[in-house]
This record gives sequence, C-alpha cells and structure tokens, in this order.
Amino acid sequence: MPHIDLPEGMPGITAGFSFRPETAKPMRELAHVLLHTSGNDGLSSADRELIASFVSSRNDCFFCKTSHGAAAAHLHEDGERVVNAVCAEYASAPISNKLKALLAIAEAVQIDGKRVTKDLVDKSKAGGATDTDIHDTVLIAAAFCMYNRYVDGLGTWQPRDPSAYVEMGKRMAERGYSGEPEPQK
Amino acid sequence: MPHIDLPEGMPGITAGFSFRPETAKPMRELAHVLLHTSGNDGLSSADRELIASFVSSRNDCFFCKTSHGAAAAHLHEDGERVVNAVCAEYASAPISNKLKALLAIAEAVQIDGKRVTKDLVDKSKAGGATDTDIHDTVLIAAAFCMYNRYVDGLGTWQPRDPSAYVEMGKRMAERGYSGEPEPQK
Repeated sequence: MPHIDLPEGMPGITAGFSFRPETAKPMRELAHVLLHTSGNDGLSSADRELIASFVSSRNDCFFCKTSHGAAAAHLHEDGERVVNAVCAEYASAPISNKLKALLAIAEAVQIDGKRVTKDLVDKSKAGGATDTDIHDTVLIAAAFCMYNRYVDGLGTWQPRDPSAYVEMGKRMAERGYSGEPEPQK
Repeated sequence: MPHIDLPEGMPGITAGFSFRPETAKPMRELAHVLLHTSGNDGLSSADRELIASFVSSRNDCFFCKTSHGAAAAHLHEDGERVVNAVCAEYASAPISNKLKALLAIAEAVQIDGKRVTKDLVDKSKAGGATDTDIHDTVLIAAAFCMYNRYVDGLGTWQPRDPSAYVEMGKRMAERGYSGEPEPQK
C-alpha cells in the first residue's frame, strides 16, 4: 500500500513519476543516457541493463530487478539464463571477464562507494574496460541505489507475477526511458 | 586518487560532471528541483539541504556532507549549530517536529526503502507533512544514496579542510544546481 496518495494501477516507479513530473524528467533522462546508450564502442545496452538488474537484486527491489532483468533478457542472447546466473553468482555466469570485473565494481558501489579499490579498477582495465565503462558502471550502480530506494520507500504497487514484466522489459529495452512518444510507423 | 582520468583540481562531484556532461545534466537538474525549490508552502531549501547533509553524513561522504552542510548552514538561522546537531542526533536537535519526523523517514530510506513504515509516515503527517513533503524527503534521501556513491566510487579529490566548503555552500544555497551562468548585475 503506497505511503502517499499515488495514482492507482501504475506499477513501481511510474507511480512516483506521475505524482511528481518535475523530478521524473531528470530521473528518466539519466536512465536513458545510462542504460539506452548505443552507437559507441562502450558497454552495450544489454550489459547496462544487466548491471541495473544485478544491483536492484542486491537491493532486493522486486520491481526494478524484475523489469530491468526482463529488459536485459530481451537484449541478451539466451537472456533469462544469463540474468539469473548473474544475479545468483556473477563470477561463474556465462559472461565476459570484462563484465565480471565491472560487476565486482558495481557490487562494491551498492554497499559503499568507498569500497571501490585500485585492485578492482585495475582488474576491470586488464579485462578491457575503458574509463567511460568504469564511470558508467559506478554511476549505474549508484543510480539504482536511488531508483530502488525511491520505488520501495514510497511503498509503490509492484505486481508480483514476473510474467507481468516481460512486455514492460521489452518496451524499456527497445524504446529506452526518455518518455518520448513511440515513433510513427 | 581518482580511479579514472578525471580533470585535476575539480573537487568531488564536479570532476565526475566534467568527465561525463551527458549524465551531469540530469543529475544537476534533479538536485536543482529537489534542493532549490522555493515559492511554495512545502519544505524550504534550508530544510532540503539539511536532509541532504544528514543522509550524506550517514553515508560518510565527506564532500557531500560538508558542502550541503555548508549550504544548509548558510540558509538556516544559527546554521552551523543546527547542521551539527542534526547530524549528531536529530531527535534532540533544535528543529520542528515535522522535520524530525521527515528525518526519521530519510534515516530509513538511507538504509533501505522498505524500512519506511506506515508509523513513520503517520507521524510525519501528524507533524504537518504533506504528501509532497514525504515524496521529496524519500527522493532526497534516495538521490543522496546515488550522489554519495558516485563521489566516493570514482575516488574523487575531496578537500579535507571544512573552510574550503563555506564559499561552495553559499554558492549552492544561493544559485542552486542548474549550472546556469550567474545573472548579470
């Protein structure tokens, strides 16, 4: 039950966004830049959504881990298996060493930014991560410590059936977060 | 020592903002809406900066707690004493019961959004908090769990002398965070 008078029937963060459009705008824009970036050589959207789902899983935020997990699953080959493996134990998941090293940084940030060590950073660089990859990993992890607390702290309605998130994840993966209307076909 | 190649001589979050302007823009805008709002009946900027400094203190982020503490001190009457009292033990600080109840919500969110209970929310409403006050408190606390982790997770340079933050806090308190150039005099 929401702690404040949020619009009914809107799941998770969408209820908070509808309640306060002034804060929704930059929060959507940040998610769009961090997760939906494409066209450069850095982290793919698939990997970015995976980091988001992993951090949300560590923060035990059902709405965020399930929706971003569904987005990552839509974007990854053999998606659902990869998402589950990463959230369960990323070190043995079927992903690159670079991504494992970045997840170790995200794991540290989720607890406290001061846990990021030179050793973690060196390992990610040895795996091929650029400064921008590291920057974005730190910020995705930090940002989901915000989104997760926002969603749970407002007591938002979060549908419990994971199948309710499949279409949501597909839409997030394909269209991003800017809130722009769907392009005309 | 920063973990990535950040511009030298820029303290705390300003180095991350300079490194990645695409993410700086929405992060600045969110801080501006959340902390620099004025002209309505809700929380004052002084109270918003106080919540930001309190959460940053709980996250032990030196740069954020000191800079937003300086902003709050600039805006509050008898500012520095109030900031120190709130960060040490807000329940006995010289502030309103409404603000104490909102700080209890912020305290919960800093650990986990799911710690916000109906009892905490009821107490803040009994103290006169509106739904928007509660929403903004939850989001300020959540957002500083992001800003704090970003600043510390990048290993940014953070001047240790609190006096270096007095002018910074004054500027933040007076001009906000939108990054607009100073108005012509």
